[in-house]
Amino acid sequence: MKKGIFICIDGPEGGGKTTIIGLLGQYLQSKGLDFLLTREPGGIAISEQIREVILNKENTSMDGRTEALLYAAARRQHLVEKIIPALKDGKIVICDRFLDASLAYQGHARGLGIDEVLQINRFAIENYIPDLTILLDIEPEIGLKRIAANKGREVNRLDLEAVDFHRKVREGYQILLNRYSERIKRVDASQSIEKVFNDVLELVRKEIERV
Amino acid sequence: MKKGIFICIDGPEGGGKTTIIGLLGQYLQSKGLDFLLTREPGGIAISEQIREVILNKENTSMDGRTEALLYAAARRQHLVEKIIPALKDGKIVICDRFLDASLAYQGHARGLGIDEVLQINRFAIENYIPDLTILLDIEPEIGLKRIAANKGREVNRLDLEAVDFHRKVREGYQILLNRYSERIKRVDASQSIEKVFNDVLELVRKEIERV
Repeated sequence: MKKGIFICIDGPEGGGKTTIIGLLGQYLQSKGLDFLLTREPGGIAISEQIREVILNKENTSMDGRTEALLYAAARRQHLVEKIIPALKDGKIVICDRFLDASLAYQGHARGLGIDEVLQINRFAIENYIPDLTILLDIEPEIGLKRIAANKGREVNRLDLEAVDFHRKVREGYQILLNRYSERIKRVDASQSIEKVFNDVLELVRKEIERV
Repeated sequence: MKKGIFICIDGPEGGGKTTIIGLLGQYLQSKGLDFLLTREPGGIAISEQIREVILNKENTSMDGRTEALLYAAARRQHLVEKIIPALKDGKIVICDRFLDASLAYQGHARGLGIDEVLQINRFAIENYIPDLTILLDIEPEIGLKRIAANKGREVNRLDLEAVDFHRKVREGYQILLNRYSERIKRVDASQSIEKVFNDVLELVRKEIERV
């Protein structure tokens, strides 16, 4: 059975994930490689419906554990309907945020505990741990300034949270980086887009050659 | 701090849960006891939204693990917004299905594994394990006949599943009964409503006296 490569681009707000993933897509296409760019909920109807519940601004009473379970549910369905079929086709799957975002946001920043959030996510993803997670690391102040400049995007509930929260998110990612140093690689996202992309590309190339 | 009593009425389809809970309510009221009758999603907006996703007949591609995570999420929010406040007020909470339904349906009948489904539910409910679960036990054939006779109710996706599935559900409940014999008590729900209610009442009275 052909087996693809599962790469996640993860990190705090404003790290340039969308831009970098777009450039990666162009690169992979230019090399004639078979790939899928995706992000949850990724057009999967069930995951979209779940995401609507999470981001509904009227749901202010949502408990942190409810939210974590909903993210895990949306993740599961997107994985089953989109990522797993692509990997079975031998594609390189580039996913904009995945497991590690939940561990950093819900597990660490919201204080539910990284291990507890990992437990429900292991239920959701089974053995589909990313082969490589690239962490676009950036200081919250710089990241949030970039977002404000990025006019075209709707502000959602998570964007509205304070800088303090984003500091804790970044701290969460640092913990994961130390804990899963084999799987998660850091790129300094405060550099120019060109430099960030070069660093990302080097990691992706290595991963493609490795398998 | 006053602490209420948390009682769940659980079991396969057609065991008469709704009728029994109605009678229990009348009894508790006649005794002047402070109580809450509830069932998920229980009018909790977030849980209702989640339940809509689960029962949406168009969501035929829903994976079993997605469904289990969604049930756990709806459970969490209903617990936080409705059950915990009532217990803190010292009320007797009677909940129509809870943890054990997920273990029997998703864990056993759908084959996800009782322990795995327990894990995500422990995340959802933390230490709010029912003080007493009354299992209204009934053979699938009898239970499903009762449902068909019960005209006033809409048929949902779960009702449509085959009798074989309901046999597995019942088997799941039997496993739980053996495993948690201290907490789960069986009542033979194939008896007349009067006898079923008497058996239930005896268990509830004991639980109230115990605390």
